[in-house]
Amino acid sequence: MLYPNNIKKEFKKEISHKNRGMDLEKLINESNKYYLQNDIAIIYKKPTPIGITKVIYQNNKQIIKNGYFESKSTLDYNGIYKGKYIDFDAKVTINKTSFPLNNIHPHQFEHIENIIRHGGISFLIIKMNLNYYLLDGQKLLDFKNTTKRKSIPFDFIEKNCKKIKEGYNPPLDYLQVVKENYFKESV
Amino acid sequence: MLYPNNIKKEFKKEISHKNRGMDLEKLINESNKYYLQNDIAIIYKKPTPIGITKVIYQNNKQIIKNGYFESKSTLDYNGIYKGKYIDFDAKVTINKTSFPLNNIHPHQFEHIENIIRHGGISFLIIKMNLNYYLLDGQKLLDFKNTTKRKSIPFDFIEKNCKKIKEGYNPPLDYLQVVKENYFKESV
Repeated sequence: MLYPNNIKKEFKKEISHKNRGMDLEKLINESNKYYLQNDIAIIYKKPTPIGITKVIYQNNKQIIKNGYFESKSTLDYNGIYKGKYIDFDAKVTINKTSFPLNNIHPHQFEHIENIIRHGGISFLIIKMNLNYYLLDGQKLLDFKNTTKRKSIPFDFIEKNCKKIKEGYNPPLDYLQVVKENYFKESV
Repeated sequence: MLYPNNIKKEFKKEISHKNRGMDLEKLINESNKYYLQNDIAIIYKKPTPIGITKVIYQNNKQIIKNGYFESKSTLDYNGIYKGKYIDFDAKVTINKTSFPLNNIHPHQFEHIENIIRHGGISFLIIKMNLNYYLLDGQKLLDFKNTTKRKSIPFDFIEKNCKKIKEGYNPPLDYLQVVKENYFKESV
């Protein structure tokens, strides 16, 4: 099938526009697939932990007939990039003026602190006001430990976080920002 | 309740004997808990990936009413130790003379190769003939790539793998062997 040039352009535009509606999780998963296929990094989303209380056998296969979602004490994504351990989470807020800290469980704060102390890289990818930001784990901990605020003002995020650019492939090139933030010598 | 000394000793013996029956997975999970609590390493088992086809709401909670187990393309455990990315799996064989390579999925071989190329540490913990062995990922790949055998002879394992000692806590101190294998300068 052939498209005249102008239709092709509109089609492209539409794809890029669609990105904005695409789940943050999907954007990250697609980007991770790109990183893996291009041998840039090996990063996976951890499966959601499930408690299983009933399993039956059907045609020699196990079928789960009763289960529940367990809560996570770590972050959603981890892996290796440029020889470094990477551990992060993705958060979305529809709040326009601040990012509520109750988006992050107490165990997750602890986990971020542990990862950094052991020499890993930890951060959040935050979707807010139609943009994507990379919030460094240490900056997050410092904010939490030096204020009694229950949310991070959008101002703070704009000043302290790098924006992650959307693109065609990878759809959300967060490792570009990781490279700039954590591997300064190699930029 | 008080026990005379000799009974106490027998009780202890029984616990240590029970270890042998304890699931390899449980031994590793307990050891990881010990490593975490003692700030030695941060290593978790990844949850089993589940495909979910039916969820209902009951008392404001989501209950899984139909699901199935998905196959894994990575290894079961990963995390950070001494600043290094660690990624491994646990395998048990009741075979006494050799370890069947069909215990390892093709995707897992690929994953091990990727991890090592990116500067991570990858290995298998193998339970065989009542002992626990740490088989380095590169040695596994080399064996696979230089022979047409479908299993690794127990001889090879005994010669090329370090034994992991069982203990009280951690019940299976595999990081001691990781330290000896991969951090030679710091032993």
